[in-house]
Amino acid sequence: MFLTRSEYDRGVNTFSPEGRLFQVEYAIEAIKLGTTAIGVRSKEGVVLVVEKRVTSPLLEPSSIEKVAEVDTHIGVAMSGLTADARTLIEHARVETQQHRFTYNEPMPVESCVQALSDLALRFGEDDDGDGGMSRPFGVALLVAGWQEGEGPVLYHTDPSGMFVQYDAKAIGSGSEGAQSTLQEEYKPELSLKEAEVLALSTLKQVMEEKVTAINVDIARIAPTYHLYTKEEIEEVVSRL
Amino acid sequence: MFLTRSEYDRGVNTFSPEGRLFQVEYAIEAIKLGTTAIGVRSKEGVVLVVEKRVTSPLLEPSSIEKVAEVDTHIGVAMSGLTADARTLIEHARVETQQHRFTYNEPMPVESCVQALSDLALRFGEDDDGDGGMSRPFGVALLVAGWQEGEGPVLYHTDPSGMFVQYDAKAIGSGSEGAQSTLQEEYKPELSLKEAEVLALSTLKQVMEEKVTAINVDIARIAPTYHLYTKEEIEEVVSRL
Amino acid sequence: MFLTRSEYDRGVNTFSPEGRLFQVEYAIEAIKLGTTAIGVRSKEGVVLVVEKRVTSPLLEPSSIEKVAEVDTHIGVAMSGLTADARTLIEHARVETQQHRFTYNEPMPVESCVQALSDLALRFGEDDDGDGGMSRPFGVALLVAGWQEGEGPVLYHTDPSGMFVQYDAKAIGSGSEGAQSTLQEEYKPELSLKEAEVLALSTLKQVMEEKVTAINVDIARIAPTYHLYTKEEIEEVVSRL
Amino acid sequence: MFLTRSEYDRGVNTFSPEGRLFQVEYAIEAIKLGTTAIGVRSKEGVVLVVEKRVTSPLLEPSSIEKVAEVDTHIGVAMSGLTADARTLIEHARVETQQHRFTYNEPMPVESCVQALSDLALRFGEDDDGDGGMSRPFGVALLVAGWQEGEGPVLYHTDPSGMFVQYDAKAIGSGSEGAQSTLQEEYKPELSLKEAEVLALSTLKQVMEEKVTAINVDIARIAPTYHLYTKEEIEEVVSRL
Amino acid sequence: MFLTRSEYDRGVNTFSPEGRLFQVEYAIEAIKLGTTAIGVRSKEGVVLVVEKRVTSPLLEPSSIEKVAEVDTHIGVAMSGLTADARTLIEHARVETQQHRFTYNEPMPVESCVQALSDLALRFGEDDDGDGGMSRPFGVALLVAGWQEGEGPVLYHTDPSGMFVQYDAKAIGSGSEGAQSTLQEEYKPELSLKEAEVLALSTLKQVMEEKVTAINVDIARIAPTYHLYTKEEIEEVVSRL
Amino acid sequence: MFLTRSEYDRGVNTFSPEGRLFQVEYAIEAIKLGTTAIGVRSKEGVVLVVEKRVTSPLLEPSSIEKVAEVDTHIGVAMSGLTADARTLIEHARVETQQHRFTYNEPMPVESCVQALSDLALRFGEDDDGDGGMSRPFGVALLVAGWQEGEGPVLYHTDPSGMFVQYDAKAIGSGSEGAQSTLQEEYKPELSLKEAEVLALSTLKQVMEEKVTAINVDIARIAPTYHLYTKEEIEEVVSRL
Amino acid sequence: MFLTRSEYDRGVNTFSPEGRLFQVEYAIEAIKLGTTAIGVRSKEGVVLVVEKRVTSPLLEPSSIEKVAEVDTHIGVAMSGLTADARTLIEHARVETQQHRFTYNEPMPVESCVQALSDLALRFGEDDDGDGGMSRPFGVALLVAGWQEGEGPVLYHTDPSGMFVQYDAKAIGSGSEGAQSTLQEEYKPELSLKEAEVLALSTLKQVMEEKVTAINVDIARIAPTYHLYTKEEIEEVVSRL
Repeated sequence: MFLTRSEYDRGVNTFSPEGRLFQVEYAIEAIKLGTTAIGVRSKEGVVLVVEKRVTSPLLEPSSIEKVAEVDTHIGVAMSGLTADARTLIEHARVETQQHRFTYNEPMPVESCVQALSDLALRFGEDDDGDGGMSRPFGVALLVAGWQEGEGPVLYHTDPSGMFVQYDAKAIGSGSEGAQSTLQEEYKPELSLKEAEVLALSTLKQVMEEKVTAINVDIARIAPTYHLYTKEEIEEVVSRL
Repeated sequence: MFLTRSEYDRGVNTFSPEGRLFQVEYAIEAIKLGTTAIGVRSKEGVVLVVEKRVTSPLLEPSSIEKVAEVDTHIGVAMSGLTADARTLIEHARVETQQHRFTYNEPMPVESCVQALSDLALRFGEDDDGDGGMSRPFGVALLVAGWQEGEGPVLYHTDPSGMFVQYDAKAIGSGSEGAQSTLQEEYKPELSLKEAEVLALSTLKQVMEEKVTAINVDIARIAPTYHLYTKEEIEEVVSRL
Repeated sequence: MFLTRSEYDRGVNTFSPEGRLFQVEYAIEAIKLGTTAIGVRSKEGVVLVVEKRVTSPLLEPSSIEKVAEVDTHIGVAMSGLTADARTLIEHARVETQQHRFTYNEPMPVESCVQALSDLALRFGEDDDGDGGMSRPFGVALLVAGWQEGEGPVLYHTDPSGMFVQYDAKAIGSGSEGAQSTLQEEYKPELSLKEAEVLALSTLKQVMEEKVTAINVDIARIAPTYHLYTKEEIEEVVSRL
Repeated sequence: MFLTRSEYDRGVNTFSPEGRLFQVEYAIEAIKLGTTAIGVRSKEGVVLVVEKRVTSPLLEPSSIEKVAEVDTHIGVAMSGLTADARTLIEHARVETQQHRFTYNEPMPVESCVQALSDLALRFGEDDDGDGGMSRPFGVALLVAGWQEGEGPVLYHTDPSGMFVQYDAKAIGSGSEGAQSTLQEEYKPELSLKEAEVLALSTLKQVMEEKVTAINVDIARIAPTYHLYTKEEIEEVVSRL
Repeated sequence: MFLTRSEYDRGVNTFSPEGRLFQVEYAIEAIKLGTTAIGVRSKEGVVLVVEKRVTSPLLEPSSIEKVAEVDTHIGVAMSGLTADARTLIEHARVETQQHRFTYNEPMPVESCVQALSDLALRFGEDDDGDGGMSRPFGVALLVAGWQEGEGPVLYHTDPSGMFVQYDAKAIGSGSEGAQSTLQEEYKPELSLKEAEVLALSTLKQVMEEKVTAINVDIARIAPTYHLYTKEEIEEVVSRL
Repeated sequence: MFLTRSEYDRGVNTFSPEGRLFQVEYAIEAIKLGTTAIGVRSKEGVVLVVEKRVTSPLLEPSSIEKVAEVDTHIGVAMSGLTADARTLIEHARVETQQHRFTYNEPMPVESCVQALSDLALRFGEDDDGDGGMSRPFGVALLVAGWQEGEGPVLYHTDPSGMFVQYDAKAIGSGSEGAQSTLQEEYKPELSLKEAEVLALSTLKQVMEEKVTAINVDIARIAPTYHLYTKEEIEEVVSRL
Repeated sequence: MFLTRSEYDRGVNTFSPEGRLFQVEYAIEAIKLGTTAIGVRSKEGVVLVVEKRVTSPLLEPSSIEKVAEVDTHIGVAMSGLTADARTLIEHARVETQQHRFTYNEPMPVESCVQALSDLALRFGEDDDGDGGMSRPFGVALLVAGWQEGEGPVLYHTDPSGMFVQYDAKAIGSGSEGAQSTLQEEYKPELSLKEAEVLALSTLKQVMEEKVTAINVDIARIAPTYHLYTKEEIEEVVSRL
């Protein structure tokens, strides 16, 4: 009669009477505390832009990595616990290299995303040495890739182990506002340059600070991973 | 004297004084939060239709997989935690391929269903590396298959490890209403085309949105697995 | 001073101050929620009849298995958690086949029953890969067999690991009423046909629905396992 | 200040402030719920008599085993959880056979009793595959044996792992009354026939029902194990 | 503010804020519930006397073993949980035999005592198969030995893993009174016969019953282990 | 309704409803109890200065190691639980030596920092023998290194497994005040000598005691690790 | 709001909100209940003096070992749980012998101290067979050694895994008073004889009983370990 949610939310893998797994939901909350990241798919490639919280002028901005290369044809942007993301990315890198070694071809993007989601799902299990955790991963990823014969693809994964494909997706603290902007502005016929502008202008709206080459990172898969230099970022900023 | 259900419902595998296992019952609740899926058996084959919650126009509907092929003669529709379903389906795929490899014949559908149910039952045990979980699987499956010498069959499995054969069955949030419609309308002599219409029209009644080629998926086993294309779905919709 | 039973009943294997193991007692409660099953021994063989809860006309009654063959000379009827029973029966099947393989003779029925009870007793122990569970099995079994040189035998096993031989025994939700009927009506000189009638008429009394070939199953060991066809069941029903 | 016994009695192996192990004491309570068993040593051999609770006329009395052979020169009577006793007896049987195999002689009775007590003591330890349990064994045993060069011996073991030798000993629900009768009536110069009468008449006093060949079992070690037939029991009953 | 000792005393190996390990202290309490045992060292050898609680005239006193031989030059008297002592003594016997086998000489007494204490200390650790326990051993030992080149020695070990050498020491329920008597009466120049009298007369003072050859055991190491016969005990009693 | 943070903060790896991991946050608190350490990067090299709490004149100051060499081109300053830091440093030393052995070149500084952070992240996992802990490491590190082809670099790692590059960074109890001083005074064009003065004068402001060659340590990577002698420290002090 | 320290102090390895590890702090309390031990370093060697609580005149004082040899050049004095110290010392002995065996030279004293501290830090980890514990070690050590090329050194280790070098250090119940005396009286130019007097007179001040050859032990490393005989102790006492 006096049951409250608090009775069920500390067991890592315990269902509440309504069938919910609270620890997974709380891990998703951890992402809402994170920086915003946005992915936009154009015909020519996928653009990922991420916010970086440069809390001190003495901090070297390039050492904050919120976007990373998995393989030449796959890149990810992250939001939430960065250290957790490192584990996931490392896992994806091993998987993609093993695929190349075994089949002599790039790993299909969806297979890579599935490998990431399977690892995310495995929390609370006995760690069999490949990165499984005793709690859900507190991180969401935007996985951008170039699928042979299909072109650019963008996936979203979250702590529950689900993954879904998007044309444009925002994650992190500003995701709610950003997603509705994307929904209004996105057009499938966008060029890569227009996608850059859409992604960055959307991020700009939800960031408290001014967008500069210091506090954002941009990467694209078109068709290979490229992390924008300071100059390239400034060029995009100038086009806003 | 003041014992309440809450005293027994957090231990994954603890009986309450009335002999109930609450965590299994709560996992069944998780399914009631899921999308609706319906299976209908006709003489010519089994039809599976599933609802897809396309929460954003930017989301790629084809990446939401609520129906999946296990082997050429077996397909499943799911409701509940999709990530849990993936583990079960992966297990079934391995089992069916091993059967083909060992016996050079398709795995009997019931054997496949039993393998799925045995895995579902094994939660709370030490994971011996084949997918056992530390909590019940929060997912129900409709397993459609073509049994050699017997024809089309439809099974329902749930988190308790039970499985039962049905002529027509609905699972998920709209299952209650859908099941009574099926009960009224189902006739054993249905053709496959009529089964498609029965399944989809029943789903339509319990869905809040309009049925389109975007927010439902249809698959059939007749006698092999086939996932309907957008055009094929639209053709069925037009026949409603 | 204020100690209540609730203080001792959640530990899987904890004695209460009066020396009781509550989790085992609660597992026995799970059986009282199950369908009724009845076994009757005659000179010519043992008859097992079970109630099946066919909750929907769309459900295929033959897929509800409440009675199963272990070996050609042993069959079981079950009440309680069906999925738990599957584990026990699978264990018994392996044991009986190993016995045949090793000794080239059918396994003595009591040895088979003891193997089942030993497994039931082993809950809470480390699972050594042969089906041990982290909680008591929530199922009771009626094991019917044909013992070479002895004839028909009927055993009852429960979650505590105890097993006892009976002339006639009822388990499940209607067991109390059914057992007193059996006690009044049972005669050692029953023929197999009379045993069929006694078992089915007793079951009929405790079932809410009318007895049909759909909602009961009958099996006999005389001297080998035989599951009655629909026609054979109807023939028995007609003799009531 | 407000500490009660209940604070210390659920940990399987936790000392209370007074240095007591409550779970062991509660296991001893489980024995007090059991049927009564009595052992009497005479010059010619040891007699074991046990009460059997035949709760239904349909139950086969011979399938209730409260007395069992371990080796040709050792038998045990039990009280408490019968299923636990089975594990202990199986262990003793293996130990005595291994002794015969290794040394080509019957195992000394005390060695066998010590093996039983060591196993009883090992609860709460990691199970190393030889029958250790996660709780104390809820069973007491009367171990009757014929020690080469010494003659008949009678041991009592309990859940704490202690064992002691007796001339005559009662265990189970009626043990208190029975033990004082034995103390008054026992004489070392008893013949085997007189021991039979003493044991059975003592049991009779504490049983609620009339003693018959159905509800008691008698066994003797003189010098080998012999379980009395129905006729032999009736012969002893007639001598009371 | 309202912290009581009870907050820290159930964890097997948890420090209280004052740096105490309560479970060890409670194990020491278990010893205070045990029978009294006394050891006295004389120039000619060590005498061990123990009280035996013969609770029934039907009980065989010689089967209560409160004093035991470890090796020909080492014996122990025990107080507390007898079953725990058996584990310790078995461990010591293996250690002393291994020493003889490896070095071809009797094990130094102190090494044997240290082996016992190390085992006692290891509770709560993973059992590595040599007798470690999940709780402290609830037993104290008086270890009497004959050290080559040194003569008779007497050690006291307790559940905390400490061991200390004594000229005369009492353990068990009557230890307090007995120890002060020993302190007053002990003289280093005692002969073995005088040591026997001192030990037994001290025990007599703290026993409720009359000292007889039935309810005490005496053993000596002088220089080898000898357990007194009934006649030898009576001879000592007569000298009191 | 009455949920407080205390409900979620003891599980080593449990998310609170807001998505926070309290044990990691508390480990970060442990650092705030530690001594202050400061790192400053100049063009010519990185300077690390650390405070040492010399609590007694009898204590040998050189045995307090708050700064340590990992490899010839990497050094670390630490704040928090010194014993935890030892485990991390030992791990880094093994990693750097293995890199040299495998690739015949110094380990890239960032790889070394990543290895440290990965170990820090692994708490709560099964220890696979390489230093993983059952709680977060209660220590922050300033890792100074000389990256071939890049020059001096300074990293900061904390218990959450995050790492970031800084021009100048303070950790420990006085970090807040020190960091704002660094922010005001730091200039990228600093010489090594000026960096020494900036680091030490900043430390001086937040230390309660006078800065002497006894209660601070200074080390530099320029381009190899050098721990300043007493004379060298005094020389820097004299330049303040 | 109502959080008290008691919420965090029972988990062996749980941080409190202020970043403290209470179980380690409580283990340090265990040392404050121990006997006092004092180490003083002179140019000629290190002197260790320890108090022994001889609670009974029948107790053999030499069997209380509060000071022990690790190798010929290393000795330790201990305070706290003696049995825990035995485990540490045994570990140190193995380490020093392995060093001699591998490198054919005495182990550096600091390496030995570090090995002791690393073991102390490892509590709560899985025991990998080399002495790790499930709780902090409740013991502090004074490690005296003769470092080749450096001369006498004195280290202090505590349950947190920290170690520091001292000229003179007191541990145990009287450490506070003793340490301030040492601080006033210690001079680096002390001779070994003067160090003996300083250590013993300081101990005398904090002991309740008179200092005799019975209730103290003295050892020195000058340059090898020597445990003082009764006569040597008396000689030092006479010089006070």
